[in-house]
Amino acid sequence: MRYDIAIVGSGPAGLSAAINSKIRNKNIIVFGNDNLSNKLVKAPSIDNYLGFHDISGEDLKDKFKEHIDSMGIQILSKKINSIYAMGEYFALMSGDEMFEATTVILATGVEYGKPIKGEEEFLGKGVGYCATCDAPLYRDKKVAVIGYNKESKEEANFLSEIASKTYFIPMYKKESLVRASDELETSIEVINDRPIQIHGDNLVNKVEFKEKEIDVDGVFVIKDSASPKSLVPGIETDGPHIKVDINMKTSIEGCFAAGDCAGKPYSYIKSAGQGQIAALNAVSYLDKLKLKNKK
Amino acid sequence: MRYDIAIVGSGPAGLSAAINSKIRNKNIIVFGNDNLSNKLVKAPSIDNYLGFHDISGEDLKDKFKEHIDSMGIQILSKKINSIYAMGEYFALMSGDEMFEATTVILATGVEYGKPIKGEEEFLGKGVGYCATCDAPLYRDKKVAVIGYNKESKEEANFLSEIASKTYFIPMYKKESLVRASDELETSIEVINDRPIQIHGDNLVNKVEFKEKEIDVDGVFVIKDSASPKSLVPGIETDGPHIKVDINMKTSIEGCFAAGDCAGKPYSYIKSAGQGQIAALNAVSYLDKLKLKNKK
Repeated sequence: MRYDIAIVGSGPAGLSAAINSKIRNKNIIVFGNDNLSNKLVKAPSIDNYLGFHDISGEDLKDKFKEHIDSMGIQILSKKINSIYAMGEYFALMSGDEMFEATTVILATGVEYGKPIKGEEEFLGKGVGYCATCDAPLYRDKKVAVIGYNKESKEEANFLSEIASKTYFIPMYKKESLVRASDELETSIEVINDRPIQIHGDNLVNKVEFKEKEIDVDGVFVIKDSASPKSLVPGIETDGPHIKVDINMKTSIEGCFAAGDCAGKPYSYIKSAGQGQIAALNAVSYLDKLKLKNKK
Repeated sequence: MRYDIAIVGSGPAGLSAAINSKIRNKNIIVFGNDNLSNKLVKAPSIDNYLGFHDISGEDLKDKFKEHIDSMGIQILSKKINSIYAMGEYFALMSGDEMFEATTVILATGVEYGKPIKGEEEFLGKGVGYCATCDAPLYRDKKVAVIGYNKESKEEANFLSEIASKTYFIPMYKKESLVRASDELETSIEVINDRPIQIHGDNLVNKVEFKEKEIDVDGVFVIKDSASPKSLVPGIETDGPHIKVDINMKTSIEGCFAAGDCAGKPYSYIKSAGQGQIAALNAVSYLDKLKLKNKK
Protein backbone atom coordinates (compact mmCIF):
# COMPACT_ATOMS: atom_id res chain seq x y z
CA MET A 1 0.00 0.00 0.00
CA ARG A 2 1.04 3.57 -0.55
CA TYR A 3 0.74 6.11 2.27
CA ASP A 4 -0.14 9.75 1.65
CA ILE A 5 2.52 11.01 4.03
CA ALA A 6 5.50 9.25 5.59
CA ILE A 7 6.90 11.05 8.60
CA VAL A 8 10.46 10.19 9.59
CA GLY A 9 11.10 11.07 13.22
CA SER A 10 9.00 11.16 16.38
CA GLY A 11 10.29 14.29 18.08
CA PRO A 12 8.15 17.44 18.35
CA ALA A 13 8.44 18.18 14.60
CA GLY A 14 7.40 14.67 13.56
CA LEU A 15 4.55 14.45 16.08
CA SER A 16 3.18 17.87 15.19
CA ALA A 17 3.33 16.89 11.51
CA ALA A 18 1.51 13.66 12.38
CA ILE A 19 -1.39 15.26 14.27
CA ASN A 20 -1.89 17.90 11.60
CA SER A 21 -1.82 15.34 8.77
CA LYS A 22 -4.23 13.11 10.65
CA ILE A 23 -6.66 16.00 11.27
CA ARG A 24 -6.64 16.51 7.50
CA ASN A 25 -7.64 12.86 7.02
CA LYS A 26 -4.42 11.77 5.40
CA ASN A 27 -3.20 8.22 5.50
CA ILE A 28 0.06 8.47 7.41
CA ILE A 29 2.92 6.34 8.68
CA VAL A 30 5.28 7.60 11.37
CA PHE A 31 8.75 6.15 11.95
CA GLY A 32 10.38 6.82 15.29
CA ASN A 33 11.08 5.23 18.63
CA ASP A 34 9.16 4.38 21.79
CA ASN A 35 10.87 7.16 23.68
CA LEU A 36 9.58 9.57 21.03
CA SER A 37 12.70 11.75 21.34
CA ASN A 38 15.88 10.79 23.16
CA LYS A 39 16.88 14.44 23.29
CA LEU A 40 13.57 15.53 24.79
CA VAL A 41 13.41 12.96 27.59
CA LYS A 42 16.87 13.99 28.77
CA ALA A 43 15.91 17.66 29.23
CA PRO A 44 15.75 18.44 32.97
CA SER A 45 13.48 21.49 32.68
CA ILE A 46 11.85 23.24 29.74
CA ASP A 47 10.66 26.84 30.08
CA ASN A 48 10.14 27.98 26.54
CA TYR A 49 7.38 25.72 25.20
CA LEU A 50 4.43 28.12 25.41
CA GLY A 51 1.71 26.61 27.59
CA PHE A 52 3.98 24.57 29.86
CA HIS A 53 6.20 26.36 32.34
CA ASP A 54 9.09 24.55 34.04
CA ILE A 55 8.16 21.09 32.77
CA SER A 56 10.61 18.19 32.60
CA GLY A 57 11.40 16.65 29.24
CA GLU A 58 9.99 13.36 30.47
CA ASP A 59 6.68 15.00 31.45
CA LEU A 60 6.44 16.92 28.19
CA LYS A 61 7.07 13.66 26.35
CA ASP A 62 4.14 12.15 28.28
CA LYS A 63 1.90 15.07 27.22
CA PHE A 64 2.90 14.47 23.60
CA LYS A 65 2.24 10.75 24.01
CA GLU A 66 -1.24 11.38 25.42
CA HIS A 67 -1.97 13.71 22.53
CA ILE A 68 -1.04 11.23 19.79
CA ASP A 69 -2.65 8.33 21.66
CA SER A 70 -5.98 10.11 21.88
CA MET A 71 -5.83 10.69 18.14
CA GLY A 72 -4.97 7.08 17.42
CA ILE A 73 -1.54 7.85 15.99
CA GLN A 74 0.98 5.05 16.24
CA ILE A 75 4.75 5.24 15.99
CA LEU A 76 6.47 2.46 14.09
CA SER A 77 9.76 1.58 15.81
CA LYS A 78 11.74 1.16 12.63
CA LYS A 79 14.80 3.03 11.50
CA ILE A 80 14.70 4.41 7.97
CA ASN A 81 18.09 4.02 6.32
CA SER A 82 17.47 5.62 2.98
CA ILE A 83 14.76 7.41 1.06
CA TYR A 84 14.61 7.47 -2.72
CA ALA A 85 12.54 9.86 -4.84
CA MET A 86 10.94 7.57 -7.45
CA GLY A 87 9.05 10.27 -9.35
CA GLU A 88 5.46 9.50 -8.39
CA TYR A 89 6.32 8.38 -4.89
CA PHE A 90 9.08 7.90 -2.36
CA ALA A 91 10.58 4.54 -1.39
CA LEU A 92 11.61 4.42 2.25
CA MET A 93 14.00 1.61 3.11
CA SER A 94 14.24 0.12 6.58
CA GLY A 95 16.76 -2.69 6.41
CA ASP A 96 15.30 -4.89 3.66
CA GLU A 97 11.75 -3.65 4.14
CA MET A 98 10.35 -1.00 1.82
CA PHE A 99 7.56 1.50 2.47
CA GLU A 100 5.91 3.70 -0.16
CA ALA A 101 4.53 7.19 0.35
CA THR A 102 3.48 10.01 -1.96
CA THR A 103 5.09 12.63 0.26
CA VAL A 104 7.75 12.57 2.96
CA ILE A 105 8.28 14.80 5.96
CA LEU A 106 11.81 14.58 7.34
CA ALA A 107 11.94 15.27 11.07
CA THR A 108 15.11 13.39 11.88
CA GLY A 109 16.79 15.86 14.21
CA VAL A 110 20.52 16.49 14.06
CA GLU A 111 23.46 14.62 15.38
CA TYR A 112 25.46 16.77 17.72
CA GLY A 113 28.52 14.52 17.80
CA LYS A 114 31.19 15.15 15.21
CA PRO A 115 32.01 12.20 12.98
CA ILE A 116 35.04 10.18 14.01
CA LYS A 117 38.18 10.92 11.99
CA GLY A 118 38.06 8.68 8.91
CA GLU A 119 34.33 7.99 9.27
CA GLU A 120 33.28 10.10 6.29
CA GLU A 121 36.34 9.21 4.25
CA PHE A 122 35.64 5.48 4.45
CA LEU A 123 31.85 5.67 4.16
CA GLY A 124 30.90 2.85 1.78
CA LYS A 125 34.47 1.53 1.96
CA GLY A 126 34.07 -0.38 5.17
CA VAL A 127 32.13 2.21 7.16
CA GLY A 128 28.36 1.79 7.20
CA TYR A 129 25.36 3.09 9.14
CA CYS A 130 23.06 0.08 8.77
CA ALA A 131 24.05 -3.38 9.94
CA THR A 132 20.92 -5.00 8.55
CA CYS A 133 21.70 -3.61 5.10
CA ASP A 134 25.40 -4.40 4.85
CA ALA A 135 25.90 -7.40 7.13
CA PRO A 136 26.17 -9.94 4.28
CA LEU A 137 29.38 -8.19 3.16
CA TYR A 138 31.05 -9.12 6.43
CA ARG A 139 30.43 -12.87 6.62
CA ASP A 140 33.36 -14.39 8.54
CA LYS A 141 35.06 -11.03 8.80
CA LYS A 142 35.87 -8.76 11.71
CA VAL A 143 33.57 -5.83 12.48
CA ALA A 144 33.32 -3.06 15.07
CA VAL A 145 30.03 -1.51 16.10
CA ILE A 146 30.37 2.03 17.44
CA GLY A 147 27.06 2.55 19.17
CA TYR A 148 25.63 5.95 20.11
CA ASN A 149 22.37 4.51 21.47
CA LYS A 150 21.22 1.39 23.29
CA GLU A 151 19.52 0.01 20.20
CA SER A 152 22.95 -0.39 18.66
CA LYS A 153 23.39 -3.50 20.81
CA GLU A 154 20.79 -5.24 18.70
CA GLU A 155 22.80 -4.46 15.60
CA ALA A 156 25.92 -5.83 17.27
CA ASN A 157 24.09 -9.04 18.25
CA PHE A 158 22.83 -9.47 14.72
CA LEU A 159 26.30 -8.92 13.25
CA SER A 160 27.85 -11.40 15.67
CA GLU A 161 25.82 -14.17 14.02
CA ILE A 162 27.52 -13.46 10.70
CA ALA A 163 30.94 -11.96 11.42
CA SER A 164 33.87 -13.99 12.72
CA LYS A 165 34.55 -11.37 15.39
CA THR A 166 32.41 -8.51 16.63
CA TYR A 167 33.58 -5.61 18.79
CA PHE A 168 31.11 -3.28 20.49
CA ILE A 169 32.10 0.23 21.50
CA PRO A 170 29.40 1.96 23.59
CA MET A 171 29.49 5.75 23.07
CA TYR A 172 26.47 6.54 25.24
CA LYS A 173 26.46 7.24 28.95
CA LYS A 174 24.38 6.25 31.93
CA GLU A 175 24.61 2.51 31.56
CA SER A 176 27.15 0.36 33.33
CA LEU A 177 29.43 -1.71 31.19
CA VAL A 178 28.13 -4.82 32.96
CA ARG A 179 24.57 -3.96 31.96
CA ALA A 180 25.72 -3.32 28.38
CA SER A 181 27.43 -6.71 28.28
CA ASP A 182 24.36 -8.36 29.74
CA GLU A 183 22.33 -7.69 26.65
CA LEU A 184 25.09 -8.64 24.25
CA GLU A 185 25.99 -12.04 22.85
CA THR A 186 28.89 -13.47 24.86
CA SER A 187 31.03 -13.72 21.73
CA ILE A 188 31.04 -9.92 21.42
CA GLU A 189 34.03 -8.09 22.86
CA VAL A 190 33.13 -4.79 24.50
CA ILE A 191 35.77 -2.07 24.23
CA ASN A 192 35.44 0.69 26.76
CA ASP A 193 37.78 3.17 25.13
CA ARG A 194 37.37 6.26 22.96
CA PRO A 195 37.81 5.73 19.21
CA ILE A 196 40.20 8.29 17.71
CA GLN A 197 40.40 7.37 14.04
CA ILE A 198 39.26 4.81 11.48
CA HIS A 199 42.24 3.77 9.37
CA GLY A 200 42.51 1.98 6.06
CA ASP A 201 44.09 1.75 2.69
CA ASN A 202 41.40 1.54 0.05
CA LEU A 203 39.20 -0.20 2.58
CA VAL A 204 38.98 0.03 6.35
CA ASN A 205 41.50 -2.10 8.18
CA LYS A 206 41.92 -0.65 11.66
CA VAL A 207 40.28 1.33 14.43
CA GLU A 208 42.59 3.39 16.60
CA PHE A 209 41.53 4.06 20.18
CA LYS A 210 43.05 6.27 22.82
CA GLU A 211 44.85 3.31 24.36
CA LYS A 212 44.77 0.51 21.79
CA GLU A 213 44.12 -0.51 18.20
CA ILE A 214 42.04 -3.28 16.66
CA ASP A 215 42.16 -4.82 13.19
CA VAL A 216 38.76 -4.88 11.51
CA ASP A 217 37.23 -5.19 8.03
CA GLY A 218 34.19 -3.09 8.74
CA VAL A 219 32.94 -0.41 11.12
CA PHE A 220 29.26 0.28 11.79
CA VAL A 221 28.47 3.64 13.30
CA ILE A 222 24.98 3.46 14.81
CA LYS A 223 23.46 6.88 15.56
CA ASP A 224 19.92 8.11 16.14
CA SER A 225 19.94 10.06 12.92
CA ALA A 226 21.83 9.79 9.69
CA SER A 227 23.20 12.79 7.83
CA PRO A 228 20.58 14.19 5.44
CA LYS A 229 22.66 13.42 2.35
CA SER A 230 23.19 9.80 3.31
CA LEU A 231 19.48 9.46 4.15
CA VAL A 232 18.05 11.18 1.06
CA PRO A 233 20.45 11.02 -1.87
CA GLY A 234 20.41 14.24 -3.87
CA ILE A 235 18.81 16.47 -1.27
CA GLU A 236 20.25 19.98 -0.99
CA THR A 237 21.83 20.82 2.34
CA ASP A 238 23.39 23.77 4.07
CA GLY A 239 26.07 22.45 6.40
CA PRO A 240 24.44 19.80 8.61
CA HIS A 241 20.93 21.06 7.76
CA ILE A 242 18.43 20.35 5.01
CA LYS A 243 17.71 23.42 2.87
CA VAL A 244 14.08 24.48 3.22
CA ASP A 245 11.95 27.44 2.19
CA ILE A 246 9.43 29.19 4.43
CA ASN A 247 6.88 26.47 3.60
CA MET A 248 9.30 23.76 4.74
CA LYS A 249 9.78 22.48 1.19
CA THR A 250 13.11 20.85 0.43
CA SER A 251 14.85 20.79 -2.95
CA ILE A 252 12.97 17.57 -3.81
CA GLU A 253 9.32 17.95 -4.82
CA GLY A 254 6.95 16.30 -2.34
CA CYS A 255 9.66 16.13 0.31
CA PHE A 256 9.43 18.46 3.31
CA ALA A 257 11.61 18.90 6.40
CA ALA A 258 10.93 20.30 9.87
CA GLY A 259 12.64 20.70 13.21
CA ASP A 260 16.33 20.53 14.06
CA CYS A 261 17.22 18.88 10.74
CA ALA A 262 15.86 21.98 8.96
CA GLY A 263 18.14 24.38 10.82
CA LYS A 264 18.62 26.35 14.00
CA PRO A 265 17.37 27.28 16.55
CA TYR A 266 17.22 23.77 17.99
CA SER A 267 14.15 23.95 20.17
CA TYR A 268 10.90 22.20 20.77
CA ILE A 269 8.14 24.63 19.91
CA LYS A 270 9.94 25.88 16.83
CA SER A 271 10.10 22.24 15.72
CA ALA A 272 6.42 21.65 16.48
CA GLY A 273 5.49 24.80 14.56
CA GLN A 274 7.52 23.72 11.55
CA GLY A 275 6.04 20.22 11.72
CA GLN A 276 2.62 21.79 11.35
CA ILE A 277 3.70 23.96 8.41
CA ALA A 278 5.29 20.95 6.70
CA ALA A 279 2.15 18.85 7.19
CA LEU A 280 -0.23 21.50 5.87
CA ASN A 281 1.96 22.03 2.82
CA ALA A 282 2.22 18.29 2.22
CA VAL A 283 -1.58 18.13 2.41
CA SER A 284 -1.94 20.94 -0.09
CA TYR A 285 0.62 19.23 -2.38
CA LEU A 286 -1.41 16.00 -2.21
CA ASP A 287 -4.66 17.82 -2.95
CA LYS A 288 -3.18 19.51 -6.01
CA LEU A 289 -1.78 16.19 -7.21
CA LYS A 290 -5.20 14.58 -6.86
CA LEU A 291 -6.80 17.36 -8.87
CA LYS A 292 -4.13 17.05 -11.57
CA ASN A 293 -4.58 13.29 -11.85
CA LYS A 294 -8.33 13.72 -12.22
CA LYS A 295 -7.93 15.87 -15.31
CA MET B 1 14.09 54.39 28.57
CA ARG B 2 14.86 52.21 25.60
CA TYR B 3 13.74 48.56 25.59
CA ASP B 4 15.79 45.82 23.94
CA ILE B 5 12.75 44.24 22.30
CA ALA B 6 9.25 45.59 21.77
CA ILE B 7 6.72 42.88 21.02
CA VAL B 8 3.52 44.02 19.33
CA GLY B 9 0.75 41.47 19.87
CA SER B 10 -0.17 39.06 22.66
CA GLY B 11 -1.30 36.02 20.69
CA PRO B 12 0.76 32.81 20.63
CA ALA B 13 3.48 34.40 18.45
CA GLY B 14 3.89 37.43 20.72
CA LEU B 15 3.81 35.39 23.93
CA SER B 16 6.29 32.83 22.66
CA ALA B 17 8.57 35.70 21.58
CA ALA B 18 8.16 37.22 25.04
CA ILE B 19 9.10 34.10 27.03
CA ASN B 20 12.08 33.39 24.81
CA SER B 21 13.34 36.99 25.01
CA LYS B 22 12.88 37.00 28.77
CA ILE B 23 14.80 33.74 29.18
CA ARG B 24 17.63 35.43 27.32
CA ASN B 25 17.56 38.27 29.86
CA LYS B 26 16.39 40.94 27.48
CA ASN B 27 14.52 44.00 28.60
CA ILE B 28 11.15 43.65 26.89
CA ILE B 29 7.83 45.41 26.53
CA VAL B 30 4.77 43.58 25.25
CA PHE B 31 1.74 45.36 23.77
CA GLY B 32 -1.51 43.45 23.61
CA ASN B 33 -4.80 43.02 25.36
CA ASP B 34 -6.10 41.41 28.53
CA ASN B 35 -7.76 38.66 26.55
CA LEU B 36 -4.33 37.87 25.04
CA SER B 37 -5.90 36.87 21.72
CA ASN B 38 -9.49 37.50 20.69
CA LYS B 39 -9.16 34.85 18.02
CA LEU B 40 -7.83 32.24 20.44
CA VAL B 41 -10.48 32.65 23.14
CA LYS B 42 -13.23 32.17 20.56
CA ALA B 43 -11.91 28.77 19.41
CA PRO B 44 -14.28 26.04 20.65
CA SER B 45 -11.77 23.18 20.47
CA ILE B 46 -8.12 22.99 19.45
CA ASP B 47 -6.60 19.66 18.44
CA ASN B 48 -3.40 20.60 16.74
CA TYR B 49 -1.34 22.31 19.43
CA LEU B 50 1.05 19.49 20.31
CA GLY B 51 0.78 18.68 24.01
CA PHE B 52 -2.87 19.65 24.44
CA HIS B 53 -5.56 17.49 22.87
CA ASP B 54 -9.11 18.79 22.50
CA ILE B 55 -8.60 21.92 24.56
CA SER B 56 -10.84 24.99 24.34
CA GLY B 57 -9.35 28.28 23.23
CA GLU B 58 -10.28 29.77 26.59
CA ASP B 59 -8.43 27.00 28.46
CA LEU B 60 -5.38 27.26 26.23
CA LYS B 61 -5.38 31.01 26.81
CA ASP B 62 -5.35 30.29 30.57
CA LYS B 63 -2.35 27.98 30.13
CA PHE B 64 -0.54 30.73 28.24
CA LYS B 65 -1.49 33.23 30.95
CA GLU B 66 -0.13 30.96 33.70
CA HIS B 67 3.09 30.56 31.73
CA ILE B 68 3.77 34.28 31.30
CA ASP B 69 2.61 35.06 34.85
CA SER B 70 5.05 32.60 36.35
CA MET B 71 7.81 34.28 34.36
CA GLY B 72 6.74 37.74 35.44
CA ILE B 73 5.82 38.90 31.96
CA GLN B 74 3.23 41.66 31.78
CA ILE B 75 1.09 42.71 28.86
CA LEU B 76 0.57 46.42 28.35
CA SER B 77 -3.00 47.07 27.16
CA LYS B 78 -2.10 49.72 24.63
CA LYS B 79 -2.66 49.76 20.92
CA ILE B 80 0.33 50.60 18.78
CA ASN B 81 -0.74 52.78 15.83
CA SER B 82 2.53 53.21 14.03
CA ILE B 83 6.13 52.13 14.22
CA TYR B 84 8.96 54.17 12.73
CA ALA B 85 12.48 52.89 12.03
CA MET B 86 14.70 55.70 13.35
CA GLY B 87 18.03 54.11 12.46
CA GLU B 88 19.40 53.15 15.88
CA TYR B 89 16.02 52.32 17.34
CA PHE B 90 12.32 52.08 16.65
CA ALA B 91 9.71 54.58 17.80
CA LEU B 92 6.38 52.93 18.64
CA MET B 93 3.45 55.32 18.81
CA SER B 94 0.38 54.62 20.90
CA GLY B 95 -1.88 57.62 20.53
CA ASP B 96 0.37 60.45 21.68
CA GLU B 97 2.62 58.22 23.78
CA MET B 98 5.95 57.06 22.37
CA PHE B 99 7.96 53.96 23.27
CA GLU B 100 11.52 53.24 22.16
CA ALA B 101 13.04 49.85 21.44
CA THR B 102 16.17 48.64 19.70
CA THR B 103 14.32 45.80 17.99
CA VAL B 104 10.68 45.09 17.22
CA ILE B 105 8.82 41.81 16.85
CA LEU B 106 5.54 42.21 14.99
CA ALA B 107 2.97 39.62 16.07
CA THR B 108 -0.15 41.52 15.16
CA GLY B 109 -2.20 38.77 13.54
CA VAL B 110 -4.22 39.39 10.40
CA GLU B 111 -7.54 40.95 9.78
CA TYR B 112 -9.83 38.52 8.06
CA GLY B 113 -12.37 41.09 6.93
CA LYS B 114 -11.82 42.71 3.57
CA PRO B 115 -11.51 46.48 3.63
CA ILE B 116 -14.69 48.38 2.81
CA LYS B 117 -14.84 49.78 -0.71
CA GLY B 118 -13.14 53.17 -0.63
CA GLU B 119 -11.39 52.50 2.70
CA GLU B 120 -7.93 52.15 1.20
CA GLU B 121 -8.51 54.83 -1.43
CA PHE B 122 -9.35 57.48 1.17
CA LEU B 123 -6.82 56.42 3.80
CA GLY B 124 -5.31 59.65 5.10
CA LYS B 125 -7.97 61.62 3.20
CA GLY B 126 -10.70 61.27 5.77
CA VAL B 127 -10.25 57.59 6.61
CA GLY B 128 -8.16 56.83 9.69
CA TYR B 129 -7.41 53.92 12.01
CA CYS B 130 -6.64 55.83 15.20
CA ALA B 131 -9.15 58.20 16.75
CA THR B 132 -6.73 59.37 19.45
CA CYS B 133 -4.24 60.38 16.76
CA ASP B 134 -6.51 62.16 14.32
CA ALA B 135 -9.42 63.43 16.44
CA PRO B 136 -8.22 67.08 16.48
CA LEU B 137 -8.76 67.21 12.70
CA TYR B 138 -12.48 66.62 13.21
CA ARG B 139 -13.38 69.29 15.75
CA ASP B 140 -17.00 70.30 15.09
CA LYS B 141 -17.20 67.99 12.13
CA LYS B 142 -19.17 64.80 11.44
CA VAL B 143 -17.47 61.43 11.89
CA ALA B 144 -18.41 57.76 11.61
CA VAL B 145 -16.73 55.04 13.66
CA ILE B 146 -16.88 51.61 12.02
CA GLY B 147 -16.03 49.32 14.90
CA TYR B 148 -14.84 45.71 14.53
CA ASN B 149 -14.34 45.21 18.27
CA LYS B 150 -15.95 46.34 21.51
CA GLU B 151 -13.03 48.63 22.34
CA SER B 152 -14.05 50.75 19.37
CA LYS B 153 -16.87 52.16 21.52
CA GLU B 154 -14.27 53.97 23.60
CA GLU B 155 -12.93 55.61 20.46
CA ALA B 156 -16.46 56.66 19.50
CA ASN B 157 -17.05 58.15 22.96
CA PHE B 158 -13.81 60.05 22.78
CA LEU B 159 -14.63 61.41 19.32
CA SER B 160 -18.11 62.49 20.41
CA GLU B 161 -16.49 65.00 22.77
CA ILE B 162 -14.85 66.72 19.83
CA ALA B 163 -16.96 66.12 16.74
CA SER B 164 -20.28 67.84 16.11
CA LYS B 165 -21.90 64.51 15.24
CA THR B 166 -20.67 60.96 15.80
CA TYR B 167 -22.10 57.83 14.21
CA PHE B 168 -21.18 54.36 15.48
CA ILE B 169 -21.48 51.31 13.26
CA PRO B 170 -20.88 48.04 15.16
CA MET B 171 -19.43 45.34 12.88
CA TYR B 172 -19.01 42.67 15.55
CA LYS B 173 -21.54 40.08 16.62
CA LYS B 174 -22.83 38.67 19.87
CA GLU B 175 -23.78 41.87 21.60
CA SER B 176 -27.25 43.32 21.55
CA LEU B 177 -27.66 46.78 20.10
CA VAL B 178 -29.16 47.91 23.41
CA ARG B 179 -26.03 46.79 25.24
CA ALA B 180 -23.83 48.55 22.67
CA SER B 181 -25.79 51.77 23.12
CA ASP B 182 -25.55 51.43 26.90
CA GLU B 183 -21.84 52.02 26.85
CA LEU B 184 -22.00 54.84 24.33
CA GLU B 185 -22.52 58.55 24.95
CA THR B 186 -26.18 59.41 24.32
CA SER B 187 -25.20 61.90 21.61
CA ILE B 188 -23.84 59.08 19.44
CA GLU B 189 -26.15 57.67 16.77
CA VAL B 190 -25.82 53.92 16.33
CA ILE B 191 -26.38 52.68 12.78
CA ASN B 192 -27.22 49.04 12.53
CA ASP B 193 -26.69 48.65 8.81
CA ARG B 194 -23.91 47.27 6.64
CA PRO B 195 -21.53 49.84 5.14
CA ILE B 196 -21.09 49.31 1.38
CA GLN B 197 -18.75 52.09 0.31
CA ILE B 198 -16.94 55.17 1.53
CA HIS B 199 -17.44 57.99 -0.97
CA GLY B 200 -15.67 61.29 -1.50
CA ASP B 201 -14.20 63.75 -3.86
CA ASN B 202 -10.71 64.60 -2.73
CA LEU B 203 -11.78 63.95 0.82
CA VAL B 204 -14.38 61.65 2.32
CA ASN B 205 -17.91 63.08 2.25
CA LYS B 206 -20.29 60.15 2.53
CA VAL B 207 -20.76 56.59 3.78
CA GLU B 208 -23.15 54.46 1.77
CA PHE B 209 -24.99 51.68 3.59
CA LYS B 210 -27.19 48.92 2.31
CA GLU B 211 -30.31 50.94 3.12
CA LYS B 212 -29.20 54.53 3.71
CA GLU B 213 -26.45 57.10 3.33
CA ILE B 214 -24.88 59.54 5.79
CA ASP B 215 -22.83 62.69 5.17
CA VAL B 216 -19.55 62.68 7.12
CA ASP B 217 -16.16 64.40 7.10
CA GLY B 218 -14.23 61.48 8.53
CA VAL B 219 -14.45 57.73 8.94
CA PHE B 220 -12.55 55.78 11.61
CA VAL B 221 -12.18 52.07 10.99
CA ILE B 222 -11.28 50.40 14.30
CA LYS B 223 -9.92 46.85 13.94
CA ASP B 224 -7.84 44.58 16.17
CA SER B 225 -4.90 44.86 13.84
CA ALA B 226 -3.84 47.41 11.32
CA SER B 227 -2.50 46.51 7.91
CA PRO B 228 1.27 46.02 8.06
CA LYS B 229 1.96 48.91 5.70
CA SER B 230 -0.11 51.37 7.72
CA LEU B 231 1.53 50.13 10.94
CA VAL B 232 5.13 50.11 9.75
CA PRO B 233 5.68 52.54 6.89
CA GLY B 234 8.07 51.12 4.31
CA ILE B 235 7.86 47.47 5.31
CA GLU B 236 7.75 44.99 2.44
CA THR B 237 4.61 42.92 2.22
CA ASP B 238 3.24 40.07 0.17
CA GLY B 239 -0.50 40.58 -0.08
CA PRO B 240 -1.85 40.96 3.47
CA HIS B 241 1.34 39.47 4.97
CA ILE B 242 4.69 40.86 6.04
CA LYS B 243 7.55 39.44 3.98
CA VAL B 244 9.90 37.39 6.17
CA ASP B 245 12.82 35.07 5.64
CA ILE B 246 13.28 31.74 7.41
CA ASN B 247 14.74 33.59 10.42
CA MET B 248 11.60 35.77 10.63
CA LYS B 249 13.51 38.87 9.54
CA THR B 250 11.48 41.52 7.71
CA SER B 251 12.80 43.94 5.10
CA ILE B 252 13.68 46.40 7.90
CA GLU B 253 16.82 45.65 9.90
CA GLY B 254 16.06 44.90 13.53
CA CYS B 255 12.40 44.31 12.78
CA PHE B 256 11.05 40.76 12.91
CA ALA B 257 7.59 39.30 12.36
CA ALA B 258 5.91 36.08 13.52
CA GLY B 259 2.54 34.38 13.44
CA ASP B 260 -0.45 35.08 11.22
CA CYS B 261 0.91 38.47 10.10
CA ALA B 262 3.93 36.66 8.64
CA GLY B 263 1.84 34.37 6.43
CA LYS B 264 -0.20 31.21 6.31
CA PRO B 265 -0.99 28.72 7.76
CA TYR B 266 -2.93 30.63 10.41
CA SER B 267 -2.50 28.41 13.43
CA TYR B 268 -1.36 28.52 16.99
CA ILE B 269 1.68 26.32 17.29
CA LYS B 270 3.12 27.57 14.02
CA SER B 271 2.79 31.07 15.45
CA ALA B 272 4.38 30.07 18.76
CA GLY B 273 7.26 28.42 16.88
CA GLN B 274 7.84 31.50 14.76
CA GLY B 275 7.65 33.73 17.85
CA GLN B 276 10.51 31.74 19.28
CA ILE B 277 12.58 32.00 16.09
CA ALA B 278 11.94 35.76 15.91
CA ALA B 279 12.97 36.23 19.54
CA LEU B 280 16.18 34.24 19.25
CA ASN B 281 17.15 36.13 16.10
CA ALA B 282 16.34 39.47 17.74
CA VAL B 283 18.56 38.42 20.65
CA SER B 284 21.39 37.53 18.33
CA TYR B 285 20.93 40.85 16.48
CA LEU B 286 21.17 42.71 19.81
CA ASP B 287 24.27 40.78 20.84
CA LYS B 288 26.03 41.59 17.57
CA LEU B 289 25.07 45.25 17.90
CA LYS B 290 26.51 45.34 21.41
CA LEU B 291 29.76 43.83 20.20
CA LYS B 292 29.92 46.32 17.32
CA ASN B 293 29.33 49.29 19.60
CA LYS B 294 32.11 48.10 21.92
CA LYS B 295 34.68 48.26 19.16
